[in-house]
Amino acid sequence: MPHIPAPEGLPGITGLLAFKPSTGMRVADLMHELLRGDSPLSAAEREAIGAYVSRRNECEFCARSHGATAAHLDASEELREAALVGPDAEGIPPKLRALLAVAGAIVEGGHRVTDKLVEAAREAGATDEELHDTVLIAAAFCMVNRYVDGLGAVTPTEDAAYDQMGVRLARDGYRRVL
Amino acid sequence: MPHIPAPEGLPGITGLLAFKPSTGMRVADLMHELLRGDSPLSAAEREAIGAYVSRRNECEFCARSHGATAAHLDASEELREAALVGPDAEGIPPKLRALLAVAGAIVEGGHRVTDKLVEAAREAGATDEELHDTVLIAAAFCMVNRYVDGLGAVTPTEDAAYDQMGVRLARDGYRRVL
Repeated sequence: MPHIPAPEGLPGITGLLAFKPSTGMRVADLMHELLRGDSPLSAAEREAIGAYVSRRNECEFCARSHGATAAHLDASEELREAALVGPDAEGIPPKLRALLAVAGAIVEGGHRVTDKLVEAAREAGATDEELHDTVLIAAAFCMVNRYVDGLGAVTPTEDAAYDQMGVRLARDGYRRVL
Repeated sequence: MPHIPAPEGLPGITGLLAFKPSTGMRVADLMHELLRGDSPLSAAEREAIGAYVSRRNECEFCARSHGATAAHLDASEELREAALVGPDAEGIPPKLRALLAVAGAIVEGGHRVTDKLVEAAREAGATDEELHDTVLIAAAFCMVNRYVDGLGAVTPTEDAAYDQMGVRLARDGYRRVL
């Protein structure tokens, strides 16, 4: 049961954003910039990083909605698996694998991103901006995952709900969520 | 040593925000709204929540800068202690104590915010909006703490540096950081 009353028919984070639009529009704007704005990482790669971090944080709503969005942006089998299992996904490029390992460290805490993890990412070809974006995207999902589950937001169970969200978020991004 | 090159003379998160202004301005805008925008919680209470969460996440830069900001907004001994030790601080009002317990749960993860913690906050007088703001502020600090330490941002050691930041942030807030 949600800890605060959110508007009807708005599952997960959408009800929370609508509960307080002054903060909601800024969370949505930040997430849109991180996931659709200027970045050397593709939108699908960024969604896969977010879905993987959400799974590690046991946030079902975010893991399933962003996993579906990644799939609708790039239906490759490898990227769908990366959204589920992160760096252990088969067949993903070494750079994405190394960046997913950095994202997994962020789940545990900022100090868990060791020089060794960063060096491995650089050796696989990651640039400063790719490292920056990976860390900030993973950290931002550590925020939204806690926002959603910390307020007990409504989490649909049926796959169709997430598939519909994935279609919409792949097409429109996050600024229209509010 | 920082994992990415940040502009000289900009410690902690400020160098990271300047590294990529397109995301930096949105992080700063969100933090300003959360800490200075419309809320039933005072700016000093919100800074104390952020400082406490940062301490729990072992983010020295954020814990010391936001602790100093809370002190410059409200020099009460009780609130300074709350910024350090959270719900165990002596002499703080029961509602703030209950909200700090919710914020501490958020550090561990969204699912750690139990019905019991929420009921205790409501019994102490917390409203829906106070619960919402506490959860989102605590979650946002889980983001910025990871951003700062995940990229190995420069962390000054001397108290005077944080005191100066506290004066400036208490006066100007976060939009001017960039």
